[in-house]
Amino acid sequence: MTSSSSGPLRIGILGAARIARLFVEAVRPSTKVVVTAVASRDGDRAAAFARELDIGRVHSSYDALFADPDIDAVYVPLPNNLHAEWSIRAAAAGKHVLCEKPLAANAAQARSMFDAARKNGVYLVEAYPYRAQPQTLKVRELVTAGAIGRIQLIQASFGFPLTDVANIRMDPTLAGGALMDAGSYPVSFVRMVAGTAPVRVSALSCWGATGVDLTTMATLEYPDGLLAQISCSFTTARHRHAFISGDAGSISTPYFNDTGAAFPPLVDVRRGSGWDAEREVIETGSTAGFLAEAESFHDLVRFGWEKWTGATPDESIDIALTLDAIAASSRRGVPVEVGR
Amino acid sequence: MTSSSSGPLRIGILGAARIARLFVEAVRPSTKVVVTAVASRDGDRAAAFARELDIGRVHSSYDALFADPDIDAVYVPLPNNLHAEWSIRAAAAGKHVLCEKPLAANAAQARSMFDAARKNGVYLVEAYPYRAQPQTLKVRELVTAGAIGRIQLIQASFGFPLTDVANIRMDPTLAGGALMDAGSYPVSFVRMVAGTAPVRVSALSCWGATGVDLTTMATLEYPDGLLAQISCSFTTARHRHAFISGDAGSISTPYFNDTGAAFPPLVDVRRGSGWDAEREVIETGSTAGFLAEAESFHDLVRFGWEKWTGATPDESIDIALTLDAIAASSRRGVPVEVGR
Repeated sequence: MTSSSSGPLRIGILGAARIARLFVEAVRPSTKVVVTAVASRDGDRAAAFARELDIGRVHSSYDALFADPDIDAVYVPLPNNLHAEWSIRAAAAGKHVLCEKPLAANAAQARSMFDAARKNGVYLVEAYPYRAQPQTLKVRELVTAGAIGRIQLIQASFGFPLTDVANIRMDPTLAGGALMDAGSYPVSFVRMVAGTAPVRVSALSCWGATGVDLTTMATLEYPDGLLAQISCSFTTARHRHAFISGDAGSISTPYFNDTGAAFPPLVDVRRGSGWDAEREVIETGSTAGFLAEAESFHDLVRFGWEKWTGATPDESIDIALTLDAIAASSRRGVPVEVGR
Repeated sequence: MTSSSSGPLRIGILGAARIARLFVEAVRPSTKVVVTAVASRDGDRAAAFARELDIGRVHSSYDALFADPDIDAVYVPLPNNLHAEWSIRAAAAGKHVLCEKPLAANAAQARSMFDAARKNGVYLVEAYPYRAQPQTLKVRELVTAGAIGRIQLIQASFGFPLTDVANIRMDPTLAGGALMDAGSYPVSFVRMVAGTAPVRVSALSCWGATGVDLTTMATLEYPDGLLAQISCSFTTARHRHAFISGDAGSISTPYFNDTGAAFPPLVDVRRGSGWDAEREVIETGSTAGFLAEAESFHDLVRFGWEKWTGATPDESIDIALTLDAIAASSRRGVPVEVGR
């Protein structure tokens, strides 16, 4: 494992995609992480990216970046279908891995990624910026403390308009589609709150001309009476919201990736089970999601799992199993048991 | 048909249930409707009810009330399984009928109720107080005007705690259960916004010891790519919310039955499809739901369908067909086509 044990975590980036640019810009203020290199098979593109974003080193291939001893970890913002292969190669090279969501194209790939990380003694995690937001940490704190009682119902949605059929998210061969791209968010939110995977899911989708789902809605069933609903869409106005009801209160939150003046980090809590429930709208701290996530990733690498606010490997595998089952239910038109 | 053609609409009430009391108290300020009689087979109970609520006339049977020439219309707040029989008898006696939701135990009953009304030349409608709220009328106005573009996704939820297993809503033989009792609200909301019935539904439920569903979640599929989700529950904290996304904006609303200081009639509109959508939180007028509903019912009887803000017979039949399909899907564990 290549890793300096102090100083900022030195991150190399695979590819020069738009999301990579947003990541670099967001983490720039950090003293915990520093983006030291970018790799792209398109040398000109990588050079321009590095120049613009003031990144010191450019590699002409991902393997060259993996061989760089001055890099501790890699950020993988590649198309969904490439996450597994390149995360595994990075782990094999002794690099810690922060991989964009969805972690893999399916649960089997996700498992092999964590196997590779374990075998090589590195940390590998799935990136959900909202998980590092104070807003989300407050939701978890309230749920864990029993502020709304026993959890009975969870709903989470994420949708936005995507009309460009040439976008890679419209390509079924690249693990595209609303479920993989947008749906991983609500599925991950539900997994976080439920604390376990559902046993069965039932899903319906609206399909687009390119063969991907444009909207998917699913119901998730748990053994103890809990039910959850998720929705995701490429055909709606941009929206993002989640609702949790316990038997003693409820919580609403937009579970934003990024919070700030335009996207206030609100946790709307009702304590009590009747109309007279006491309402409290908690405003937590605001931060750029990539920044908070990258710093939590630093803490993970330096101090271990208890410092990581994001999805654990168990959670990521459950998320992948749930996404697999939702996709299967939607394709086959019947409820599907979630794999173990 | 017994009907004075001017002056307040004279309403007789079947039974002295708790909801009947709330109705009488709510409509008291109206100059359009007046509760003139109550009928109950329990004479003492009816007499006490009439005395307390200052109702002039008590009938010892529903049939005696139907024979009263000074009554124009009846309000039917009986247990769900009795709605069809007594609404049909009221119609046969020439009384207009305002029947509590859910209109019937199934769509076949709903159809026979409207047949009876048509045959006897009376109006018969299903009571959803939220439909008469200025808040709801604003939502309909915005949707109809295209304020959020083409409708792509609808979500509606209603839940509250019900732990008393002796409550009639826990009795499957009385058409109880969360779907019939609470779920008729979100299903009716989705029908109102969609403007048509779904073609297929997929539902999962959590079942209680008495044999009714305690929580039901369903996905509703439409032929043109629209998908909708509903949830209803007896096991959660009290909650009520709906969300509509078009391709050019979105609307959130609690679609309250009653609005006022504690339950502000808010319609939260976002115009635009991106994060930069322009947000407007519209606060409409407040009113007691039963009052607004009863006055709209008066307008219906006096002036015809264009004055009725509530569910039309076509809507009520679609709602009943959808509830039938959701119940069947949940019981059988497969998606179910919605009947026509």
